Order: sequence, then C-alpha cells, then structure tokens
Amino acid sequence: MFIGCMSGGLFAGQEHLASLLPDYLGMAPVPATRVESACASGGLALRMGLLSILSGEHEMVLVGGVEKMTDVSGNAATYALSTAADQTYEGFHGVTFPGLYAMVAREYMERYGATRKQLAEVAVKNHANGALNEKAQFQRRISVDEVLQSLLVADPLRVLDCSPITDGASVAILCPLEVARKISQKPLVKISGSGHASDTIALHSRKDILAFSAVEKSAQQAYKMSGKAPGQIDVVEVHDCFTIAELVVLEAMGLLERGHSGPATEAGYTALDGRLPVNTSGGLKAKGHPVGATGVSQAVEVVQQLRGEAGDRQVPNARVGLIQNMGGSGGSSVVHILDAV
Amino acid sequence: MFIGCMSGGLFAGQEHLASLLPDYLGMAPVPATRVESACASGGLALRMGLLSILSGEHEMVLVGGVEKMTDVSGNAATYALSTAADQTYEGFHGVTFPGLYAMVAREYMERYGATRKQLAEVAVKNHANGALNEKAQFQRRISVDEVLQSLLVADPLRVLDCSPITDGASVAILCPLEVARKISQKPLVKISGSGHASDTIALHSRKDILAFSAVEKSAQQAYKMSGKAPGQIDVVEVHDCFTIAELVVLEAMGLLERGHSGPATEAGYTALDGRLPVNTSGGLKAKGHPVGATGVSQAVEVVQQLRGEAGDRQVPNARVGLIQNMGGSGGSSVVHILDAV
Repeated sequence: MFIGCMSGGLFAGQEHLASLLPDYLGMAPVPATRVESACASGGLALRMGLLSILSGEHEMVLVGGVEKMTDVSGNAATYALSTAADQTYEGFHGVTFPGLYAMVAREYMERYGATRKQLAEVAVKNHANGALNEKAQFQRRISVDEVLQSLLVADPLRVLDCSPITDGASVAILCPLEVARKISQKPLVKISGSGHASDTIALHSRKDILAFSAVEKSAQQAYKMSGKAPGQIDVVEVHDCFTIAELVVLEAMGLLERGHSGPATEAGYTALDGRLPVNTSGGLKAKGHPVGATGVSQAVEVVQQLRGEAGDRQVPNARVGLIQNMGGSGGSSVVHILDAV
Repeated sequence: MFIGCMSGGLFAGQEHLASLLPDYLGMAPVPATRVESACASGGLALRMGLLSILSGEHEMVLVGGVEKMTDVSGNAATYALSTAADQTYEGFHGVTFPGLYAMVAREYMERYGATRKQLAEVAVKNHANGALNEKAQFQRRISVDEVLQSLLVADPLRVLDCSPITDGASVAILCPLEVARKISQKPLVKISGSGHASDTIALHSRKDILAFSAVEKSAQQAYKMSGKAPGQIDVVEVHDCFTIAELVVLEAMGLLERGHSGPATEAGYTALDGRLPVNTSGGLKAKGHPVGATGVSQAVEVVQQLRGEAGDRQVPNARVGLIQNMGGSGGSSVVHILDAV
C-alpha cells in the first residue's frame, strides 16, 4: 500500500498511517508506505505504486490518499497548509497560499491582460461540473457575479477562487496489465506515462513566477514515456487549488499556449462540452481538496471517464486522460497519462 | 531523492521536504519523495530508493533521513512521537512510548525470567560503543549502577533505558552495482536483501505483545531475498529505542532464540568483541535517535563496518551486515541485509 497524506500530524494528531491503515483495513502484515509532497501527496502515491510494480517487488498495490482537515479549529488548517511553503522565508513573514497565488494571479493579469472575469470563469465551469458529481463537496452551480462579489481573500483572489477545506479519501488498485486482464470485468485503463519533478519551494526564488517549471518538466516526462503529445489528450484533471492555478498549469503542460488560458476558458474550450474538458469532476474547487487524497481522486475521475462510467459528466469517446497534481506553489509536481486499453 | 522524516509538521512546522530539500541542496528539478513510517521512516526511504532503482526509472538515488526534534518545548516532542501510536485508543488514554515499551518489558521479564540488570546491560554496551563514535550524541560509558539508579520513567524502564531526543540527518547514495564499479574508489557494499511489513498499530491488538511479527516477517523477507541465514550475519544495527526493544527484535529476527537475549547480552555475546556485535554505532540509545534519520544512519554504520572504515569500533572481517528499523511499538518494520562485494 502507498498512502498519500500531507499532514496527519497537524490535522489529526496521527502519523504512522503506514501502520494504522493496513491494520484498520485488516490487511496487516501488508507493507505500507506513506508518501508526502504536500498537496501532491496523492499523485506521488500513485507514482510510487507504479514504480513498486515496475520494480518487480509487488504485483498488486493499493494506492490511496487521505486527509481529515476539519477536526481542527481557528486558523489551524491554514497553518497546517502553510507548512507546504518555506517556513523560514515565506511562513515567517506571514504569507499563506492565498497570498502566494494572488501574486501569481496579479503577474499573470499584468503580463497577459487576463481579466478578473476570466479567473471567475474557471470556478464557474468547475462548479458546473461539480453539480453533476455526486461525490463533489459543492454540487451547485455558481455565476460569474457570485464569484466577483464573494469575500475578498487576497486581492485579486476571492473566496470562490479558492478550493475549500475538505475531509476525503480516495483509492485505486494497480497491477500489471496481464494480471488485470485475468481478474477484471471492467474496461482496463493503463498508466502509459508518469512524470515527477521539483522546483524551489519559495515562490520568490524563481526567475519567473509564472513558469511552474516542475509542472512543465513532469508533464514532459509523462508525454515522453507515454508517446503522447498534448494534442492527443481527451480529458484532463489539473490542480486548481486556486482559479489562477488551472490557467497557469494548462499552459505549463503545453495544453494551451502561454497567456491563452483565460480567453480559452471564457470561450468554453475547457468546458465539459468544449474541445478539451478540464476538471470534469468539479476539480479541487468544487469536488473539494482533501490534500493527500486529491491526486488519487483525479485518477479515479479519469478512469471513470475512460471507462465510459462518468454519467452526466461523460466526455464522449475519451480515450486518453492526463492528471496533474502539485505541491505548494508548484515546488513539486506529478503528472500521469492514462490510456483506455 | 527519498527522504525519511516522521513529523516535519509537528517538530518544525515544515512539511513538503520533497520540495525544500532538493531546492536547498541546489538539486531541483530532481524528483523527491518524502516517506514516513514513524521511526522506520529512514529504513523505508532506503527501501523506496532500492525499489525505484529496481524499477528502472532511476539510476542514481539519494536516500536521506532527517529529524529536527529539539526546537519544540514542554511536552511537544513526546506528543509528536506519540502520534506514531494509535491516537484514538492509545494516545487518548495518555499512554506514550515509554509506557508501551514498559509493558513489553514487564511481560518479557515475567515470561522469560529476564532481569532488570540484563536490560541495563543493553544500555551499558551501547554507550560503550557510542564512546568510540565521534558522531554519537552520548560519547561516554555508563555503568549498570548508573542505569539502575537513573530516573524512573515508566516502571521498569528508567531514563537510561530510553533513546534520547535528537537532531540529526543521514544520507546514502544508491545506484546499480555496475554503475558503482565505474565511479567509486571505495570498497562496494550491496543491498542483498530487503523486507518490509506492518502489524497492528496498537500494542493491545496483538495476540502476543512480545511477538513483534512485523519485525519477524520483514527479516524473513530480507533473509530470503539475500539468500543469507541469521547465522551468516557478522554485524547488526537494530532499533533499540528502549533497551527492551533490542532484546525482543534480536529474537524476532532469529538472531537469538526467544528468551535468550537477556543472558546473551549479559554474557557479552552482542558486545563489540562478542560473537554477534549489535549496535556498534552506539545504537539509538547512545548515537541518538533523530527518528527519520535513524534508519539511514544504520546503513551508514554498517557500510563503514563492511568497508573496514569503522576505526576503534571495527568488527574484524565483517562481510555481511543486517539493519532493522521499526515504527512505533513495532507497527511497521523494515530490514535490510548488506554485503561487502
């Protein structure tokens, strides 16, 4: 078992999930490993599950993600999340993630002329998708006006630009394709590409705060391993911890040109019925963001899409999906490409 | 990079070491993974490094462990460590690790007739070894009387039965043997065996609190993979978080018969000049126990022994070493066997 969890210690007073989870599942003595890379912990668990199968050491791997974020009160959740940033240089000065992503948004709007409304369109689209997902935290549509009139958190980001505090868990089972052919009655989905990269943990250490180079590099690795180009992707789940994040990561992965995500979102390109549906699950914004669970839940959504089991959210003829999960302000990123077999 | 760390959040307010460490080392965009299994985090990082090389995905892997435990005050360190136990059933009732291991010690003494002095001999031996290790936290010898007269922590365990609170880090570089042959000027050491297992996180859930079945199973896996039997091991580092732990894990791994560890220790069998030198580094007791770093530091000690670089602590003709690292009260365990090439 590989379990992604960001901070069992700060959120729940419980580390050592690598013993607790196999025990509570009745699976001990199965070897279990908790992996952590802040909000990319779930995607990283998926990657470690894949590597452990490729190693030949394991044949059947449970990959899970979990975070229990609502048991703490006051500003404890914001503090716990802030430990994904550089404590010495970012945390010490009081900056938290809404502030960091607000700086990214300001620079993006300045450089490319993106509008406040275009940011809002990301949240509107993801809530529309979440309204079709019975597992989503927020199953209701919102309007651009609601976003623009919602509480200001860190200018220009408002509360409806931000993913919520969420309890959640998700799970996937990995095994070699030849084993899956023998035991599964469902359409099979293959991990054809996997990439993983790091970047400076502090936003201020980067030459360009819009580059998101860990996202770019991890996507390039995944494209190369899978033999797929961005133009061959049918459905995408990305890490929209804030509305601005969806815009910049789509560009960092070459799914849209730099500066084009705002107008493209406004024009419906990334909508459920658009050319490249993004965050059909509702994304972190509407489906919720239990940080350690998010990366695995992205795989669950894309598997459902590739199996044709996504119901009202189904993207017609989806054959290739991409999932992107990142930690902090992009200090780590994990990308996978999934193919219908 | 694979980094073992138990609780960056509770000890240092810093998670996301998978971004921070490659960044601060100037190594970004190298992909990094933090792994956690309480006090077995370091050993698990070593195992994940091994699996990632076996997967064919990576060729040169840095395996590190770290814990910064002394920046917190009051009972915060004891609380942070207690999150390795079952919070709902053990932590809630106020039991911490000295209490859990005290129960193990009581049962061991009752069942096998082990004496209080035999427990003390473990600490005396490990301090004698630590006195020869310039990296040890405590580089001084202690006597049985000092142990027996030291502060009572949880009857029968006294403060000199307990490993200390420690800041520390350790690192190893792994690569395929054929690569190492090309680039290393030093004698080579091969990981010939690796094992990893879980057990119930709560001590009270086990049929036999002396079984330490995760230790037994992970050792059996490592023996099988390496083709080595317990009798072929020349030097051993085990997880002596408390003196009683050294006695029970030696037995769980078949290095001594059940109930024999106490008399064997008293007779010098596990001393530096004994038949099976155990914890030549000083062990967790004297070298220190920065929890996430411990498992990797065990590998460092055994590599030095197998290379003949252990100075005054050198075990003559050491060719095969075993390292054992465990989480909590044995809820997880990782064992590796290292061979001089």
